[in-house]
Amino acid sequence: MQLEGIRVVDLSRILSGPFCSMFLADMGAEVVKIEDVGEGDPIRRQGELRNGFSLYFASYNRNKRSLTLNLRHPDGMAALRKLIATADVVLNNFRPGVMDRMGLARAELERLRPGIVSCHISGFGLDGPYRDRPAFDFIAQAMSGFMSVNGAEGEPPMRAAPPVTDLVAGAYAAMGVCAALVRRARTGLGEEVAASLTDGMVSMLSFLATNYFATGELPVRTGNDHALVAPYGLFEASDGEVAIAPSNDQVYYKLLDALELSELRAHPDFLTNRDRFARRAAINARINARTRERPIAHWLEVLNAAGVPCGRVLDVRQVFEDPQVRHQQMRITIDHPRYGPLDVLGFPIKFSDDPCRVHRLPPDLGADTDALLAELGYTPEAIAGLRSARAA
Amino acid sequence: MQLEGIRVVDLSRILSGPFCSMFLADMGAEVVKIEDVGEGDPIRRQGELRNGFSLYFASYNRNKRSLTLNLRHPDGMAALRKLIATADVVLNNFRPGVMDRMGLARAELERLRPGIVSCHISGFGLDGPYRDRPAFDFIAQAMSGFMSVNGAEGEPPMRAAPPVTDLVAGAYAAMGVCAALVRRARTGLGEEVAASLTDGMVSMLSFLATNYFATGELPVRTGNDHALVAPYGLFEASDGEVAIAPSNDQVYYKLLDALELSELRAHPDFLTNRDRFARRAAINARINARTRERPIAHWLEVLNAAGVPCGRVLDVRQVFEDPQVRHQQMRITIDHPRYGPLDVLGFPIKFSDDPCRVHRLPPDLGADTDALLAELGYTPEAIAGLRSARAA
Repeated sequence: MQLEGIRVVDLSRILSGPFCSMFLADMGAEVVKIEDVGEGDPIRRQGELRNGFSLYFASYNRNKRSLTLNLRHPDGMAALRKLIATADVVLNNFRPGVMDRMGLARAELERLRPGIVSCHISGFGLDGPYRDRPAFDFIAQAMSGFMSVNGAEGEPPMRAAPPVTDLVAGAYAAMGVCAALVRRARTGLGEEVAASLTDGMVSMLSFLATNYFATGELPVRTGNDHALVAPYGLFEASDGEVAIAPSNDQVYYKLLDALELSELRAHPDFLTNRDRFARRAAINARINARTRERPIAHWLEVLNAAGVPCGRVLDVRQVFEDPQVRHQQMRITIDHPRYGPLDVLGFPIKFSDDPCRVHRLPPDLGADTDALLAELGYTPEAIAGLRSARAA
Repeated sequence: MQLEGIRVVDLSRILSGPFCSMFLADMGAEVVKIEDVGEGDPIRRQGELRNGFSLYFASYNRNKRSLTLNLRHPDGMAALRKLIATADVVLNNFRPGVMDRMGLARAELERLRPGIVSCHISGFGLDGPYRDRPAFDFIAQAMSGFMSVNGAEGEPPMRAAPPVTDLVAGAYAAMGVCAALVRRARTGLGEEVAASLTDGMVSMLSFLATNYFATGELPVRTGNDHALVAPYGLFEASDGEVAIAPSNDQVYYKLLDALELSELRAHPDFLTNRDRFARRAAINARINARTRERPIAHWLEVLNAAGVPCGRVLDVRQVFEDPQVRHQQMRITIDHPRYGPLDVLGFPIKFSDDPCRVHRLPPDLGADTDALLAELGYTPEAIAGLRSARAA
């Protein structure tokens, strides 16, 4: 697999860090998830259970090993340092500065393992005036500007329901780790990688940011209407709504032809996107009058055949029943010998030759503690000693 | 830099592909952007202009070289094949099958350059029943289920304004390319990587998907209210709203103490999250009654000091005036000798030792054509011949 032979020591918890290490694990890295003795990652107790096991935890922690260590105990910390000395990557999503206070500053990590890649995920970044603030997805959605552009015209700013800022930061961190490993393969050098919930989401403002840079004008919330393009949006079929998104004049002409409204091509009110945008209600009314005559399935067939981007608005059940999403295996089932089938999200990055796969079950808390400590040279007696001291 | 010495031949256009290759270029790869003779990437004509130059184009195409080739002309195609024979990565966001029809199927790429990494970004994936459908961000937002969970309770499904599906697919593709390069460094083997707008966004459904897998119950739109946690959301200060997100009981207690509402800790109506969730209006009313007494700035200071995640809802102007976003340099200015200052989005992945930076200006159309063709061994006369045939 892509990251075979790479060992990741993962000190992160909840979502942004585990999402990052999920990608590394799915691509073949050996991810050792460090968890508190007794309690473990709080995400084990979040989300709905299937057969007593959280599918939220299972989705983000498949393919990982679990090692419980008490990092407030010197013997737990000593075991962690031994493990780091065998690792290629160390990941954390503590608040900035915590790694330093734990005695795991960059220089010390480099001393333990020359060439190690250290990755930090935080709310606002490793330095700057907000570095010590607590963060959370909702706060980063608010402070990144994302909420200010999400929502309907005339309605309040709106958060997205998925924890997008955690997810984007986690994906960026995984990309940065992989890139640092490319550099290490070439130079032997280690690196420090950082991603933050807020920076990640700011980077997703896209043309809403660059248009503001160019004009100084603030974007407004436009709901399902595109801020620049018309027609575009949800249109009324006889049995529901259909999403239609012609991206330019050529596709707009294809849309008109497919709707048998070709006479509108030359209509003086609708010649250019600018004209149509200024008369959005009028052009939408013409289109709705036609689309209302037939069902969604008809329009999907006709419009796709004509090369006009279109689709249904699927709810979560319909998504996972959709033949394309099923073909792409975006819901996969892990057969667990004790918990039975555990359904999790599939792999969004596809490799033809050496694909992502489930090579380890989502671990019980501390499932790999004994094996990992033995690999580090601890005798059975020493392991028993760590356990009786509640250090592991 | 991370990807120094890596050459990427980038056949992609508009957004998802150029966003992917932006990361590769920002991290030091030499990205050669292949553009149509005459017109170039349509994104050059999209978005608002600064000094005649699209900042939307500039943001996603900094650090790249531009080579114009007419791929319908055999001499243009021959030049592309010579270039691919020098490359490490080939990227496209054509519809699936187009590369094959161009004579650039995987086996041929591998013949031209053993060990090459080929990356595809598409709307729905490289195979499956929808592989030939045209795609667009809005359609992928609709068909991924994202729209079904974005929006307010009782209101219609809502798209997010930024083109999130293009951006997520582009970021995943860049991660996949970097991981494939790690494998190539170890094994010498090439790989084929694919990401899609729809799969990428499905992977972001997070607990909304896994909770559905566990229970079979559909998630509902809840606007700014969390589907599982209360109190959580926007609260009223004397001069506007403040976002507050206590993630668990401990942080909820910190919130009560910071608000001088510690007596509510033992209130029988609000003992557990389940109690508070069932009485969201009541607990929110208690909190609002207190937060309304003082301005936002007061609460940000008090709550952050207490360790309660909180923040302002910033509009796009406020985001880029924010001291933390400025500290993280999420808006950077490229001084262009002819267009003057071009403002673009900064780098969301931070490397301590070898950071991303602007090492090339966003290119004029075909700015590097002569230099690249000369590097490939074309004489000045041969280059003139290609140009006069409109092949380059």
